[in-house]
Amino acid sequence: MNDQIKLDFQRPERLGLDEAILCARKSDAQLATIMNRVLEHGVRCLMTRLDPEVFARMARTHRERLDYDPVSRTAYLNWIPAAELEPPRIAVVSAGSSDMPQAAEVMRTLTYLGASTKQFIDIGVAGLWRLMERVEELRTFPVIVAVAGMDGALPSVLGGLIPGVIICLPTSTGYGVSNGGETALHAALASCAPGLTVVNIDNGYGAACAAFRAVNIIRRAVEEIL
Amino acid sequence: MNDQIKLDFQRPERLGLDEAILCARKSDAQLATIMNRVLEHGVRCLMTRLDPEVFARMARTHRERLDYDPVSRTAYLNWIPAAELEPPRIAVVSAGSSDMPQAAEVMRTLTYLGASTKQFIDIGVAGLWRLMERVEELRTFPVIVAVAGMDGALPSVLGGLIPGVIICLPTSTGYGVSNGGETALHAALASCAPGLTVVNIDNGYGAACAAFRAVNIIRRAVEEIL
Amino acid sequence: MNDQIKLDFQRPERLGLDEAILCARKSDAQLATIMNRVLEHGVRCLMTRLDPEVFARMARTHRERLDYDPVSRTAYLNWIPAAELEPPRIAVVSAGSSDMPQAAEVMRTLTYLGASTKQFIDIGVAGLWRLMERVEELRTFPVIVAVAGMDGALPSVLGGLIPGVIICLPTSTGYGVSNGGETALHAALASCAPGLTVVNIDNGYGAACAAFRAVNIIRRAVEEIL
Amino acid sequence: MNDQIKLDFQRPERLGLDEAILCARKSDAQLATIMNRVLEHGVRCLMTRLDPEVFARMARTHRERLDYDPVSRTAYLNWIPAAELEPPRIAVVSAGSSDMPQAAEVMRTLTYLGASTKQFIDIGVAGLWRLMERVEELRTFPVIVAVAGMDGALPSVLGGLIPGVIICLPTSTGYGVSNGGETALHAALASCAPGLTVVNIDNGYGAACAAFRAVNIIRRAVEEIL
Amino acid sequence: MNDQIKLDFQRPERLGLDEAILCARKSDAQLATIMNRVLEHGVRCLMTRLDPEVFARMARTHRERLDYDPVSRTAYLNWIPAAELEPPRIAVVSAGSSDMPQAAEVMRTLTYLGASTKQFIDIGVAGLWRLMERVEELRTFPVIVAVAGMDGALPSVLGGLIPGVIICLPTSTGYGVSNGGETALHAALASCAPGLTVVNIDNGYGAACAAFRAVNIIRRAVEEIL
Amino acid sequence: MNDQIKLDFQRPERLGLDEAILCARKSDAQLATIMNRVLEHGVRCLMTRLDPEVFARMARTHRERLDYDPVSRTAYLNWIPAAELEPPRIAVVSAGSSDMPQAAEVMRTLTYLGASTKQFIDIGVAGLWRLMERVEELRTFPVIVAVAGMDGALPSVLGGLIPGVIICLPTSTGYGVSNGGETALHAALASCAPGLTVVNIDNGYGAACAAFRAVNIIRRAVEEIL
Amino acid sequence: MNDQIKLDFQRPERLGLDEAILCARKSDAQLATIMNRVLEHGVRCLMTRLDPEVFARMARTHRERLDYDPVSRTAYLNWIPAAELEPPRIAVVSAGSSDMPQAAEVMRTLTYLGASTKQFIDIGVAGLWRLMERVEELRTFPVIVAVAGMDGALPSVLGGLIPGVIICLPTSTGYGVSNGGETALHAALASCAPGLTVVNIDNGYGAACAAFRAVNIIRRAVEEIL
Amino acid sequence: MNDQIKLDFQRPERLGLDEAILCARKSDAQLATIMNRVLEHGVRCLMTRLDPEVFARMARTHRERLDYDPVSRTAYLNWIPAAELEPPRIAVVSAGSSDMPQAAEVMRTLTYLGASTKQFIDIGVAGLWRLMERVEELRTFPVIVAVAGMDGALPSVLGGLIPGVIICLPTSTGYGVSNGGETALHAALASCAPGLTVVNIDNGYGAACAAFRAVNIIRRAVEEIL
Repeated sequence: MNDQIKLDFQRPERLGLDEAILCARKSDAQLATIMNRVLEHGVRCLMTRLDPEVFARMARTHRERLDYDPVSRTAYLNWIPAAELEPPRIAVVSAGSSDMPQAAEVMRTLTYLGASTKQFIDIGVAGLWRLMERVEELRTFPVIVAVAGMDGALPSVLGGLIPGVIICLPTSTGYGVSNGGETALHAALASCAPGLTVVNIDNGYGAACAAFRAVNIIRRAVEEIL
Repeated sequence: MNDQIKLDFQRPERLGLDEAILCARKSDAQLATIMNRVLEHGVRCLMTRLDPEVFARMARTHRERLDYDPVSRTAYLNWIPAAELEPPRIAVVSAGSSDMPQAAEVMRTLTYLGASTKQFIDIGVAGLWRLMERVEELRTFPVIVAVAGMDGALPSVLGGLIPGVIICLPTSTGYGVSNGGETALHAALASCAPGLTVVNIDNGYGAACAAFRAVNIIRRAVEEIL
Repeated sequence: MNDQIKLDFQRPERLGLDEAILCARKSDAQLATIMNRVLEHGVRCLMTRLDPEVFARMARTHRERLDYDPVSRTAYLNWIPAAELEPPRIAVVSAGSSDMPQAAEVMRTLTYLGASTKQFIDIGVAGLWRLMERVEELRTFPVIVAVAGMDGALPSVLGGLIPGVIICLPTSTGYGVSNGGETALHAALASCAPGLTVVNIDNGYGAACAAFRAVNIIRRAVEEIL
Repeated sequence: MNDQIKLDFQRPERLGLDEAILCARKSDAQLATIMNRVLEHGVRCLMTRLDPEVFARMARTHRERLDYDPVSRTAYLNWIPAAELEPPRIAVVSAGSSDMPQAAEVMRTLTYLGASTKQFIDIGVAGLWRLMERVEELRTFPVIVAVAGMDGALPSVLGGLIPGVIICLPTSTGYGVSNGGETALHAALASCAPGLTVVNIDNGYGAACAAFRAVNIIRRAVEEIL
Repeated sequence: MNDQIKLDFQRPERLGLDEAILCARKSDAQLATIMNRVLEHGVRCLMTRLDPEVFARMARTHRERLDYDPVSRTAYLNWIPAAELEPPRIAVVSAGSSDMPQAAEVMRTLTYLGASTKQFIDIGVAGLWRLMERVEELRTFPVIVAVAGMDGALPSVLGGLIPGVIICLPTSTGYGVSNGGETALHAALASCAPGLTVVNIDNGYGAACAAFRAVNIIRRAVEEIL
Repeated sequence: MNDQIKLDFQRPERLGLDEAILCARKSDAQLATIMNRVLEHGVRCLMTRLDPEVFARMARTHRERLDYDPVSRTAYLNWIPAAELEPPRIAVVSAGSSDMPQAAEVMRTLTYLGASTKQFIDIGVAGLWRLMERVEELRTFPVIVAVAGMDGALPSVLGGLIPGVIICLPTSTGYGVSNGGETALHAALASCAPGLTVVNIDNGYGAACAAFRAVNIIRRAVEEIL
Repeated sequence: MNDQIKLDFQRPERLGLDEAILCARKSDAQLATIMNRVLEHGVRCLMTRLDPEVFARMARTHRERLDYDPVSRTAYLNWIPAAELEPPRIAVVSAGSSDMPQAAEVMRTLTYLGASTKQFIDIGVAGLWRLMERVEELRTFPVIVAVAGMDGALPSVLGGLIPGVIICLPTSTGYGVSNGGETALHAALASCAPGLTVVNIDNGYGAACAAFRAVNIIRRAVEEIL
Repeated sequence: MNDQIKLDFQRPERLGLDEAILCARKSDAQLATIMNRVLEHGVRCLMTRLDPEVFARMARTHRERLDYDPVSRTAYLNWIPAAELEPPRIAVVSAGSSDMPQAAEVMRTLTYLGASTKQFIDIGVAGLWRLMERVEELRTFPVIVAVAGMDGALPSVLGGLIPGVIICLPTSTGYGVSNGGETALHAALASCAPGLTVVNIDNGYGAACAAFRAVNIIRRAVEEIL
């Protein structure tokens, strides 16, 4: 079935974004085929939802080509770090250790795309003073990714304090009526803070792409001027 | 069908709470029957969800016996204000004018039961500083009723700042994924702030009764000492 | 209850966004109070979800101060058009006449905030060629608001073609499993096109604020350079 | 319990369709009994949702009688390929490798029933040009099976371009609000493209049977003429 | 806003199906504009979900141009009956008077498109013998539209008896757990009868288009032979 | 924690029904404690949802006291078969092998309670003639338990043909929109056949108890006469 | 369309139950047609969900033939009271005035069918002693219909005290998470009291038919003996 | 990532409640880091949802510092029992062995916080007399935690009998329409007993914190007097 898979190698040109391979629910054979295809084309590729056990089962020749991170479950194939980075324009804000994997997926995707970020992980609504201490710094970022599970109150609080683009990433953290992230998703969508935007539950890759689209419109505007 | 209705006149003795008549979905005839029954017994009674149009259609003799408030849609029958009130132990906190009817149902029910309250209506999460200015005062109340619709972020913020009993009253304010109050309800239940408790959507009467149960346990404890 | 309403007049300064008054489910009396408060402060104000019948019931002195649009159900109070407008950076894309009210709410809100927009209303997925003819023009806009009900396929198609910021506004158009906009909402969130962001169902005001936040980060970046 | 199982051997005569054995949630013993019953009757049989581990646990004498395919998880028992095939009248269209198992179930079922098919697997909405290149060819097929998970936008796009019978097979691919295929299902049902029809989530067997019913009405009509 | 509406007049050529105007949730002004546009182009048009009150409010010049049916809530604009009809290939089957409006929408749409139909309205599962008497006749139709609300058992029974194409139209008839047609929809999708296909709840227009697509593939196949 | 468990040994006297131990989600230690308690009291006991692996892990002394059936996952403790059985008054009807475990739980529970039953397992709606052949026999039973998953059409068909008490047992068989039995449950509840009653999904024990209550009212009535 | 409606006049013979006409969502014209058909056949008929306004709009000749009750919204056509009634075997139990319409539909349907009933309306769980006083009397009834909305706790309590057949009728009374009766429905289905059975929300007619089926099996058994 | 975790060590001072570590979905490495951080600070800490297997995998040095209970899946780190306990003011009421883990989490949390409790585990609604025997004793407790799964009828019954603060803890016990605790949750919220409050499904920690808040307001009131 090797010849049936056709990757969208033109996407970077069209969108400024690379195609990512969502590894969940793909068989080992399918992943091997995709990696071979990418290697043949000599392009780079981002893999998401790559579980440590799946990574461990890969052929050594494949594993050696990957820059793998088990917390975010992401891998870079054929990736070369950018020589120089702009100062970070994207803040990734989360409440603590439960949302770490999703926040890490955001940051790893942005690093892959070449955007530098700054992480704020002690920003929880239940301990409001920690958030208040960082507000002034957060207001300087043009783009904020707010990672929040359970009751999803963080985006509403940020949305009333921060003027930049705010992208809410609800997470499946929690139990009972958290409903696998649905409550955090709905709370972000129903927020009375004006102008929040939201991505799918646990979609760290998508939140990163949305943030990257936002910094890209700055870059394009600035380039037009200079 | 007059003789079929049997009210629970022993409830005050058993629970310290009066039976309330939920007027929604009762016919005019049913309401008239109930009121006559209450008047015959010479007891008092609280009516909730009494729409202005239904009130307007009542016989004048009935209307004259009622202390009616159209915002909360509550009416008192045979009620006499308490001679003297303790200083308020219950704070009713809400964000603004959309949740006014539900907050008013809480306060009217508590007034009926003889508990004094203080209302805080400018406490919204999207304008956080207004809330922060009132925190110290709020911390002095043993019981807080937090009224919140839409994203329901208010209870989480309060729950991290206030040590007393917190009763969350989610409201059906909002549209789309607010889902008639379900998002506010779930956000309060899934909150990471420890020890919040919650009542049904728009159940201002229930929130008031829960608050009254809480102040009653104080009263009983104090009476035992004195 | 006049003195209980406290508006958030500092919001423009803090966020660059005005508070909007959601008129749905507010009584005539509440709306009158709010308008008086705004007029006393001499500030401007945007009103949303203002039904024609409610508008018609207002006092003439109030009606005369409003710039009212029945399609979008929005009104401007104390608003003065900007002297000069930049060329439009925001495209508002929708499929046709059913989503007109929501698209109109987006555009009226952006006009109020001072951002110029261009509307594309013949962009339906079921007649794909009409969309394909406009792709090149759409690719020049830094920000797209995609308004879509029913199956919500439009955002996915745009997301694969357009590099800018894309804000999806699902609408409650449709019946049966459209579920009042839930299917369009979920389709936008679950899209395989990378980096779409989404707001609540029918939340034209929120989509406009999100678009305004995005053009603001361009403006700020450009101002820093110049 | 051997004698309790009664298969519907008359179905092919009645409907032109064979009974298929849904292996999921059947015990090894139940499957063995069913296979023995089929072998005793000397008829053929299609087995679906037969997991590789279940297949591996079968008695060798049973395994040897099966034509098993692990991707589609289907097996043929007592099946003989048709001597000669008509040119394909059914196109099976999907976006890529994630929906491969369901597309394979469709094709294996149709092969079993004796219908020839052609597969199109590079037809994703997020990379629209690939789809546009194949439209003219797709328009020549009387029957299309459109396999789509996540946002399910593919059927809507096809439905506006293709005049034939279109059967949508939503898949459980995706996470978060994909809700195990519900969003793809609802998007196909709520599509504004006219005349799409839909089968249950992941029901590749059902989609194949529906396609086979459609080609059969052609066959019957042609036979009546000749 | 007259010039903003662009109808898809090329659809008949592309799909063999006309665009229909879904009148629900369109304003009177929007409908008038659309009708004028259709009349200017001299084409024909089908209008669905046109409530009697809306029809009654139309200008007389518009009303006189419409062939309106209040049961199905459909109207034909500029429509001329076909000179001669083929014998019916489509059977529209329903249980009784509650599903009449939806069955009527199917038949009116097919009449508009030029397909002749036969209606069977006494086909209920709770009175099974009436259904059994008609099975042989029903088996002669290449295409069946099965209209069913409440428990939606009719499609399952037909699916086990009839070899042709079966299109299930679930209806919103019923109350309680009928859930506005969701139970009938899910029952049809989850049916163990092989090869049923389904359209959205109450989508008589869509069911008719699906049936028309099916008879068209017969017509095309026959034309190729002759 | 041994002394904390208090079984309801008076239930047989009060209701004519024994307490059953739902083994699912109980720890091995809890089950051992319960069995010891039952053995000490010298009473009998029915255990449901007892998985084969859990049974295999039990102490031999416990296993030897149990009459265990792995298909229904039920066990009898201290049970002695009735000396003589009345002719069966309860028919247990199901479509085939997928619903076997639930049908078996019904029959094992009734056997335990002392009621004799007759099983009909070839009664599927998709092969209607098999059902029609048995209708006359089924009409002689005062009580029918109809076991059905997926689309749940069987109860509706039976309900229109059979005059006795009909208890529907929806099962979690199926996938996709079967929703773990919800569709079968809702179809039975929404059936247009008059007077069906329903129990919880997969609740074979409950269906058996309901059937037993029904035959008991016959027994009591007959005893009163004799 | 007069000749299209075919009523199931054989149902009484087949099931011992009459067909009832569900008037909700039928047009005035449809109802008139049905009544004429019934009158022509000289049979009797039960009409349910007949709103007072619809009744008031009927032709006088029709109204005069009906025995109409506005509380239960039922009407009898051509009905003659039974000469003599057996002592009541069915108890209809409800908590109070909110569930009155549904309880009344049960009783009116049973009266129509010729079964005598006794009503218990002061049986609420929140005032448990009232229920406890009636337990001994309730235990003498072979069949109980338990009408309960909101939290639906009544059936669970009865189910642990009463040995007869218990049919739960959940009602749509309540608000918020009562979810139009879903919570009462689910509570009855999930009850830990053994052998409860349940009908659809607000389906008083169905509950009555189920109760009638139960008393009929007693009658048949007794007749066989005598 | 060690330095990224910042615990909220000020919470006890602010709220009188300790931060608890929700161990579910945290990696072994994250838990080790958190424990080290706690040990470094010399504070105490409560861990919840700590599965026995996770506990078994911990380093021995960590395991030895924990007071671990496998039934409640809780652990105390650095905890010293209070020297002297007040008589219990909190009753923890549940129906039996299925809800034991959740009831245990409540009691272990309260013991950790220093509140003494009394457990009532034989309080089931289906065996009402056991509950009635304990009512007088239960009425003496100022605070009741009512633990209930399945139909959740227990809180409604208690709510009508007991005057104190009642905190309902719905549990995920059950199957089918129990929906993982949703039915018990909704039944408690929709209860007609006045003034019940509710926490999230299976949130024993939260119920305990709510109970502790309630006894704290008594303690504070008493201290103010003395």
